[in-house]
Amino acid sequence: MILVDVTYYPIGKGTSAAKYVKAALTVLKASGLKVYPGSMATVIEGNTLDEIFNVIKQGEETIISMGIERVETIIKVDHRLDLENSVERKMKAIS
Amino acid sequence: MILVDVTYYPIGKGTSAAKYVKAALTVLKASGLKVYPGSMATVIEGNTLDEIFNVIKQGEETIISMGIERVETIIKVDHRLDLENSVERKMKAIS
Amino acid sequence: MILVDVTYYPIGKGTSAAKYVKAALTVLKASGLKVYPGSMATVIEGNTLDEIFNVIKQGEETIISMGIERVETIIKVDHRLDLENSVERKMKAIS
Amino acid sequence: MILVDVTYYPIGKGTSAAKYVKAALTVLKASGLKVYPGSMATVIEGNTLDEIFNVIKQGEETIISMGIERVETIIKVDHRLDLENSVERKMKAIS
Repeated sequence: MILVDVTYYPIGKGTSAAKYVKAALTVLKASGLKVYPGSMATVIEGNTLDEIFNVIKQGEETIISMGIERVETIIKVDHRLDLENSVERKMKAIS
Repeated sequence: MILVDVTYYPIGKGTSAAKYVKAALTVLKASGLKVYPGSMATVIEGNTLDEIFNVIKQGEETIISMGIERVETIIKVDHRLDLENSVERKMKAIS
Repeated sequence: MILVDVTYYPIGKGTSAAKYVKAALTVLKASGLKVYPGSMATVIEGNTLDEIFNVIKQGEETIISMGIERVETIIKVDHRLDLENSVERKMKAIS
Repeated sequence: MILVDVTYYPIGKGTSAAKYVKAALTVLKASGLKVYPGSMATVIEGNTLDEIFNVIKQGEETIISMGIERVETIIKVDHRLDLENSVERKMKAIS
């Protein structure tokens, strides 16, 4: 699996991003991919870059559809071929 | 336009990434999108998230095809609707 | 409080980063700051940028001291003045 | 040398960040470190993490001093020991 974390910064409508992030999370979860919300980023597990980028795009478009005119989106991709990767495996490896 | 910067970190085959980054840059440029290579990231200008994410994926797959078994890819998206954005405009705005 | 997440990518010694990340986590935790390890990044809560950057530097130097000759470190800072921020508060706000 | 790129996102006062970024750039340049402004991030070359983090902090505090109550700061550090690194060297390596 490919692991990604994503953070959306909605710009221009006050300092609080929570309602936009919640709406994006609803879309991310509806994708069927495993989604792990966090305080600084949301981790997503998927099988292909296509499905992951597609759902990140949907989250971004959801925020824009709420009237936000600028979104900064930060994505980190951990793409590994030499073993079967997962959030669970990584957490064990560092604990 | 949507602006993105992307950095690929090929992991596991020595400290130098230049040959992998060069190969990815060739693919990015072949997309027809405007590509601005830099010392810490490459900036891409595109019209849609789909075309941008697609070319970033192609760059990542190119690195993997060269025998790299782990790639970390960092992406920052600047998605702005309230004006016609571009690298040229942003550089003027801060100069 | 200021919230940060940090990810260390040790480059050049194989695809697995776990032993280096574990060593860095030990240093981060020894700082006395609140540290939340995650699968894609570690979140740190602190009162000042100085103390946060100092501990991130110590984590990076720990990895280098283990024989790693290149480290890429990704840091995201959430610096907010209009309310008392924390991991706990942010998780409630999006749940 | 250690290379870093930094991006400041001032949150909550409209979609345009240019005046805040310009003010931060003035502070970064006043440090004496080499500073390369870009469309998506500013690259800084320095000799130590301490001096680099210190100037990044000053840039962030400058933005806050202009009335911004939330800043998101994204930092990528390229810390390499096996050769004398620089923006100039990296640009040659990928060209």
